[in-house]
This record gives sequence, C-alpha cells and structure tokens, in this order.
Amino acid sequence: MIRKPKSKLNLLRQRIHIIIYGTDTVAGRLFDLILLGLILLSVFLVMLETVKGFDAKYHHELIILEWIITGFFTLEYLLRIATTNRPRNYIFSIFGIIDLLAILPMYLSFFLVGSKVFSIIRALRLLRLFKILNHPKFTGQSIHLLKALNASRGKITVFLYFVLISTILIGSIMYVVEGEENGFTSIPMSIYWTIVTLTTVGYGDISPGTPLGQFIASMVMILGYGIIAVPTGIVTAEFTRTNTNKTELEKNSCENCGVANHNPNSKFCYHCGHPLTLK
Amino acid sequence: MIRKPKSKLNLLRQRIHIIIYGTDTVAGRLFDLILLGLILLSVFLVMLETVKGFDAKYHHELIILEWIITGFFTLEYLLRIATTNRPRNYIFSIFGIIDLLAILPMYLSFFLVGSKVFSIIRALRLLRLFKILNHPKFTGQSIHLLKALNASRGKITVFLYFVLISTILIGSIMYVVEGEENGFTSIPMSIYWTIVTLTTVGYGDISPGTPLGQFIASMVMILGYGIIAVPTGIVTAEFTRTNTNKTELEKNSCENCGVANHNPNSKFCYHCGHPLTLK
Amino acid sequence: MIRKPKSKLNLLRQRIHIIIYGTDTVAGRLFDLILLGLILLSVFLVMLETVKGFDAKYHHELIILEWIITGFFTLEYLLRIATTNRPRNYIFSIFGIIDLLAILPMYLSFFLVGSKVFSIIRALRLLRLFKILNHPKFTGQSIHLLKALNASRGKITVFLYFVLISTILIGSIMYVVEGEENGFTSIPMSIYWTIVTLTTVGYGDISPGTPLGQFIASMVMILGYGIIAVPTGIVTAEFTRTNTNKTELEKNSCENCGVANHNPNSKFCYHCGHPLTLK
Amino acid sequence: MIRKPKSKLNLLRQRIHIIIYGTDTVAGRLFDLILLGLILLSVFLVMLETVKGFDAKYHHELIILEWIITGFFTLEYLLRIATTNRPRNYIFSIFGIIDLLAILPMYLSFFLVGSKVFSIIRALRLLRLFKILNHPKFTGQSIHLLKALNASRGKITVFLYFVLISTILIGSIMYVVEGEENGFTSIPMSIYWTIVTLTTVGYGDISPGTPLGQFIASMVMILGYGIIAVPTGIVTAEFTRTNTNKTELEKNSCENCGVANHNPNSKFCYHCGHPLTLK
Repeated sequence: MIRKPKSKLNLLRQRIHIIIYGTDTVAGRLFDLILLGLILLSVFLVMLETVKGFDAKYHHELIILEWIITGFFTLEYLLRIATTNRPRNYIFSIFGIIDLLAILPMYLSFFLVGSKVFSIIRALRLLRLFKILNHPKFTGQSIHLLKALNASRGKITVFLYFVLISTILIGSIMYVVEGEENGFTSIPMSIYWTIVTLTTVGYGDISPGTPLGQFIASMVMILGYGIIAVPTGIVTAEFTRTNTNKTELEKNSCENCGVANHNPNSKFCYHCGHPLTLK
Repeated sequence: MIRKPKSKLNLLRQRIHIIIYGTDTVAGRLFDLILLGLILLSVFLVMLETVKGFDAKYHHELIILEWIITGFFTLEYLLRIATTNRPRNYIFSIFGIIDLLAILPMYLSFFLVGSKVFSIIRALRLLRLFKILNHPKFTGQSIHLLKALNASRGKITVFLYFVLISTILIGSIMYVVEGEENGFTSIPMSIYWTIVTLTTVGYGDISPGTPLGQFIASMVMILGYGIIAVPTGIVTAEFTRTNTNKTELEKNSCENCGVANHNPNSKFCYHCGHPLTLK
Repeated sequence: MIRKPKSKLNLLRQRIHIIIYGTDTVAGRLFDLILLGLILLSVFLVMLETVKGFDAKYHHELIILEWIITGFFTLEYLLRIATTNRPRNYIFSIFGIIDLLAILPMYLSFFLVGSKVFSIIRALRLLRLFKILNHPKFTGQSIHLLKALNASRGKITVFLYFVLISTILIGSIMYVVEGEENGFTSIPMSIYWTIVTLTTVGYGDISPGTPLGQFIASMVMILGYGIIAVPTGIVTAEFTRTNTNKTELEKNSCENCGVANHNPNSKFCYHCGHPLTLK
Repeated sequence: MIRKPKSKLNLLRQRIHIIIYGTDTVAGRLFDLILLGLILLSVFLVMLETVKGFDAKYHHELIILEWIITGFFTLEYLLRIATTNRPRNYIFSIFGIIDLLAILPMYLSFFLVGSKVFSIIRALRLLRLFKILNHPKFTGQSIHLLKALNASRGKITVFLYFVLISTILIGSIMYVVEGEENGFTSIPMSIYWTIVTLTTVGYGDISPGTPLGQFIASMVMILGYGIIAVPTGIVTAEFTRTNTNKTELEKNSCENCGVANHNPNSKFCYHCGHPLTLK
C-alpha cells in the first residue's frame, strides 16, 4: 500500500505498481492478458526450437523473438522489484523465483551452450493464471481440489509404500524367471517393467517370453486392477465427503460468483452484486 | 402447429410434417426407424469404401447405393424445410446444420476429389436417436449424465491446466535426459510421450532407453496413477450427489417410464398409464 | 419332490437325484466337488492340447483323459434327465443347454476335424460353483454386484452410444490426417485405433506418425481420461447407494452367514445357529 | 515384561531388549533408524549386483558390504531370540520368519550358486517401518485402508471368478479367429493376450491381425472399460462408507496425532499434549 506520493517518480512508480500487480483496472487486466500471451508464446518458441525441421528454417527469427520476450520479461522482473515496497518478499516468493529462473537460462546461454532449453521453466509462469483469474468461484474449485488431495495424502503414502515393496519383490521374481534373454537384464530393469505393467501403461519394450513369466505377468495385471482401484477409491471418498460438507456450508451462496455465507435476508451478492436466490 | 388447412397442398404438407417431425403416429415412427437404418447403412458404406479390398470388388455397387441414400437425405432435407412453419429455426438449428453437412460432401465430390470421405459426418445424424427415443426414462438418464459432467467441468478444467503445465515440464526433462537417439527428438515429441505415459496408454513407439530416463518414467507412471484418480473422483462425487438428490425428488416416480412427482394419491401414471406403487 | 417310491428302481432314482441335485448330504457335496474338479481338469486339458510342444509329447494321454471326462459328463447329463421329474425344465434351462454344449464338440469331432477346441465351452460349467456355494453370504454379494450393474445399465448405454459416435468421427479424422503410410489403412482400422487409444490399451501396432496426428492423438488420450471416469462414476454411485440401502435393511443381520432381518430379540441365527450380536 | 533382573547378564539382556524391541527410548529409535537404513542399503546392493556394468566395476566392494550387512542382520536375529522371554513367539511370527529368510540366501550361496539373488526378500523387512512408525495417526490410515479392502474382498472374489471364466472363453474365441500366424499360438497364450487387453495394459507383443479379430478385440476393450469400473466402484463404496463411519466416531479427535474419543471437556490431547479444538 503506497500512500502519499511525494514526487513525480513516486507517482509513476505507484501507477506501474497498479498496472503490474493489480487486476482491477483496465490497464492492469490488459497487462496481465498480454503477459500471459507472451508466456504462452515464449513456451511455444522454446518447444519449436527443438523441432529440427522448423529450427532449420526459422532459426534466425526464433532467436530474435526469444530475445525480445526475454527482454520484456527482464524489464517486468526489474519493475516488479522497483515498484513494490517490500522487494525481498517478492524476490524470495515462489512466483519471484520462477520469474527469475524464467529469464536466467537465456543469459546463461552465452557461457553454456545448450542451456537455452531450460527456458522451458517459463511454463511454470503459466500458474500466474490463477492470480489473474482471482475469481472466488474459480479459487474455490482449486481449493476444493487441493483439500481433497491433501486429505488423501496419508492413505496414499501408506499405499505407495506397499506398492514399492511389491514392485521390488515382483521385479526380482520376474528377473529370476525370465532372465536376460527376454529383456529382464537386471532387477532395476525388472522393477521398471513391473511398474509399467502395474500402472497398465504397458509399453511392450520389455514383455515376458516364457509361459511361467506370462502367467506371473497375468497375475500382476489382475493385481494392478485391484491396485488402481485403491487411490481412486481414496480420492473419490474424500471428494464425496468434502462435496457434502461444501453443500452444507455454501447454503447461502451466490450463483454467479460462488461467494458463500450470505445473510439469509440479503437480496444482492455483496461481492458481485448479482441478485441472490437463496434457498 | 398448423391449423385450418386451406388447400390440398396444405393438407399434404401437414401430413408430411406429422410423418417427418412427429413420433406419435405409426407412419411417423416407421419413418424415424427407416431414417435411422439408412443413416447407419450410410455410415457403414462410407467406412467400407475406404477398405481397399472391399472397394476394389464392389466399387460400382457402393457408389450407386451412396447416391440413392444421398438422394433420400436431400429429399428429406428439402421436405423438412418445406413442411415446417419456421424454416429458419430448423436450418440454423444444430440438427439442421448436421443434416446439410451430411449431404454436402457427396455433391462437392464432383469438384473436389476425395471430399466424399467427409460424408462420415453422417455419424452425427445418429444423435437423432435421442429425438426418436423421446422417452422420459431415457431422457432422464441423459440429463442426469450431462448434469453430473457439467457440474464437474470447473474442477476438471483446473485439473487439466495443472496437467498441461506438468506435461510441458516433464516432457522437457525427458528431452534433455533421453535425447534424440532414444526417440525423444523434440520437446513437442517428448510431451506427446508424456501424455501417452500419464494417461497409461503406453504405445511403446517411444520408450525411455537410459536408466535415468526409465527411473523418471517410473515416477511419471506412479504420478499418472494418482492423477487418473482425480477426474474419476470428481465425476463420481458429482454422480453420487446428483444420485442422492434424484432419489429425493423422484420419490413419487413411475416404475415403468420414470416420470416423477406424481400426486401421492394417484393410482396410475399420468404419462404411460402403468399402475403406480408409490412409497 | 419325489414321494412314495414304489419300486427299487424308483428308490435308486431318488437316491441319485439327491446326490446329483442336492447339496445338503455328504454324498451330494462330494459329487459336486468331484464334478467341479473334473470341469477344471477338462478345461485345462482342452487348453493344453492347443500348446504344440505339450500336445506333441502327451497327445495320446490327453485324448484318453478327454474321452474319460466326456464319458463321465455324458453319464451325468443322462442321469440328470433320468432322475428329475421335469426333464424339460432341466434340458431347456441355461445350465442344461451348457451341459449339452459341453459334451457335443467331442462327439462332433468324429465328423468335423477341429471341432474339439469348442469343448472350451465347458468353462461355462464353472458357473455351477454358484449353485454349489449356495451360501446366503456369497449369494448376497453376487446379487448386490448384479443389482448395482443393472441399475447402471441405462446410463452406460447412453454413454456408450456417445462413445460410438465419437470413435467413428475421431477415426475418420485420423484416417484423413495420417493416411495409409502410417498404418491407418481404412476408416474401420482407424476406429480400431481410436478404441485402442480411448480405452488406454495402447498396443502400439498402429501409432500416429505425423505431428498433427500426434497432437490429435494427445487430445484423444486426454478425452479418454475424462471418459474412463464416467462408467466408473456411474457404477460407483450405484454401489454407494445400494451399499447405503443395504446397511439399513441388514441392520439385524448375522455376522457369520449374512442372513438379515432377524427378530431383534433373537439370540441365535435361524439359518446357521451362530450367536447374534444385534446392534 | 522382564522384572527383577538378578544378574549383570540379565540387566544387559534387558537393556538390549529395550533397544531392539522398544521405540520409546532414544537408543531404541536410533537402532530402528539404523536398521531401516541398512535394510534399504541392503536391498539396493542386491539390485545393483544384477546390473552387469556396475557389478563388473565394483564386484569386490559389493560382496564385502553385503557380508557386513548380513553379519549385522544375523547378530540382530540372534539377539532378538536371546533377549525375548518367549523366543518361540518371535521365531514363528511373520516378522521372525522374514528376518530369517533375509539372511539365509547369503549363507546358502556357499552351496548353491545364484541363490544370493533371493536376498531381495529383505525388501519385506521394510514392513518394519510400520512397527517403527507406531503412531496412532499413521496406524489409523493403514487400518482404514485394510478394513476397506477387507470389506470389498467378497465382492471382488465373485467379480474375479466371472472375469476368469470370461477370459477363458474370449481367449478361445480369439485363438480360433486369429490362429497361430498372428501370434495366438495356443489357448493359454490367447488368455494371456485377453488379460493384457482387458486390464488395458496392452503390450502389443501380440495384437490381432484379422478384421474380425480386431472387431472382437474392440468389443473386449470396451468390455474392459466397464469391467475396470467394477473393482473401483466396490473399493470406493467401501471407502466412502468407512469414511462416514469414521467421521462419526472420531468427532472428538486430536488434530495433531489423530487419537479419537477424547472427553469433550478436555483441553489437551492425552496422547501428544497438543491443544484440542473439539467441535
């Protein structure tokens, strides 16, 4: 909160702050949209540069565009530090670190050939969308999602520990049964196969060749069937529970923006002004 | 609703309208069944034409049959426009557009070789089944299905956005780790691999070759395990909730046709006449 | 129910009836166990005969064993007809038809070479286990399972119809995009690929080769993600509902055998005599 | 419980007992952590020994390390027997048998070449973690998980029996339809393919080559879709039910350690001393 601007510089600083950090003014929203567009474009450029055929044709254009975007991102990063009152808070926040890591690889590419590919970390900047879409309905969905996942964490950890021990044992059995001639060259390789099979991915780069191996593999697949039901069951049970709780809590919620706990007598949402139809 | 037919033509027009649009008369139901049969046949013909061995043998017969069906569809389309009182409503409705797109590719094939294959869009006409099966029980199922999916939309969008960012990052890591010699020729290709793995499809056209790559792939698969639980959990929680609500609302529903909210004292369903056993 | 046996033959017939059809006497249970063992053995024999290496070694022994079992099954079939009072009911029941189909292929093999492999239909006789395990707890589980699946049938049919139309359209798009040089030789073949991908099976016998094809394939996989959640959600919601209903109905159920609706004052289960701990 | 130590030896025995079996003293916890670390290290060593490139380089070091760990495990095993009052209880407990099996393969390797690989059974010793993490919150999660799985056992057995019969029949049909030239060399092989397909693993080592075979395979995949929903539905319904019951029972539970059923008036958890916020 910047109060009482004392000079023209301060006034400019305050204006830029509102544009960069704010989401309520037209300029602020426009800036956010342009920024998001540039992040998307930038991620696409880094991707396209690795496509040999495309890079051969447009190498020059790609590099110029990347430097323009990197320049913009650098300017934005510096302005963010300059216009905030607590630069440290921003610099060491998760978003601040991501913003820095998003521009570093380009500058490092002068010294280290091939470091440019790490610019892909810019994809993480796409998480800014959640800051831009600072809408209660939207944030509510994310929070509900994270809450259910968080509540399932304990059981899923226990479950994964059992799965880990099982994969080691199954992998070792398959190593002994199938042996190197069928692609099970070592226990770690066999464990890799077991995970590929248990998760029903099934690349087929390694597959059992002996009748006994195929029999054990069949058992593993049917086991994987039961196993895939467990995390699904855990997460679903949490969703169902939090869903029920939510329904009770949000009895007096606005249909438009999702803000809950309105006074039962109020006729308009205090957040977005939408007429309320409270049940 | 066409009232007071003034001429023979008008009377004919009204009769055709009842046959084409109606589902209550014998002729109307028969027309719908024949239409559905022709749509199915037509879709099969377009498919079969692409099978080299079959097309070589029966090329001539296939083309004649296709033109007969296209002719019938064209006639039907024109009659639908001619017999309705509001042709614009039909022409610009979803079903009207599909009906037009279903006959266009055949006529376009005179000018554009190979455009005939787009006749496959006729498959969309199969959605007419829902208009024909205008049964409350059946429609209820569809509505329940769509409601649950619609309610899950918000959370699934948030979830897919996180998955998108994850696939970009995982794909880039695998591109750096595995490199071109193992098939990870570019970041977009690696992202394709990540999606193939995360969704547990696992073609095996690209699979990690280095120990580190296989280790990361194993982690991705186990992550995919947890991830597949999320949309399932979201959709299931919605189904459970709408299921519970439905049970309460449909307390006085007919066992035969599913129509709900009967008067608790009524002894027969007002829709199908089936005796009611209200609980 | 055979009353008043008038001759020795009738007495014998009655005794055999109790052994073959009954599950309460020691002889009846023993007969059922031996029968189930023979069915299992027979299924294994038919399987093993198709394994070239094994058949080459033990061809003679396999054939003798198969004829012995077929002889026993034929005798059992005839005795079942002879000892029941209503032979027609048995002959035209599902189990009666299966019993006949289980022995026919062996006799047909005299006229039709290769018909012996259809003896595998004996696997269906394994369903007799449910008749033998005539235990309320066990039957309850099966009924609960079938009820939930039956209740989901309507929604799953609607869902599969949508999936069918989608696979036709996606398959056609991929046929146009990928073409024959990447294995998408015809629309039916492309539809086969679409089903392989949507269900996350992913053999990899056909996989997209063009960038656009891989992009569409990625979209299809993510769609498959959402799609797999739907039947799971439907079935789970039904299980949850029937589970809840069951809990209410079976309040006074026996812990040992599962029989429900006991008189709240009774101290022992009327079915198995186990002490009751009613809540 | 060892009371009244009469000699120095007895005192030592008591102390070692507390260190090995106890988890409350610092020495006891330290011993458990070191033991767990050694188990993990040992499992990794057995794995690495099978990796040809690594074993060639560090064969000598691997063997020395393995013998040191085996020595430590042997000593621990003997001390566990020596310091407990009821050695039989320990020796014939599951953990006692695992502890013995974990050291046996190394000693057997003097007589039987290649038996060393079975030392991988040490992975089962990782289950000790649950004894070490003797935390109510953690144990509660495991118990909840096992309870839900146990409650689903009956239905899942019935379900798997149906799946088994289906795989035999589908496998046989595919054997007849596809034949040996497409890799379906025998009925057991075709059953293996059916399981690979039904569970959506889909290696692609065997895949249908005839149009009819591909059509049947498509049906099997869509069936597999419905089928995967069943165990998930069963497990989820149980999780939801036990979740609901849990919520009611644990109304007065501690947020920190999960211990439930506190006196509604208590202000601190009787187990961990954390301030309670009972609702």
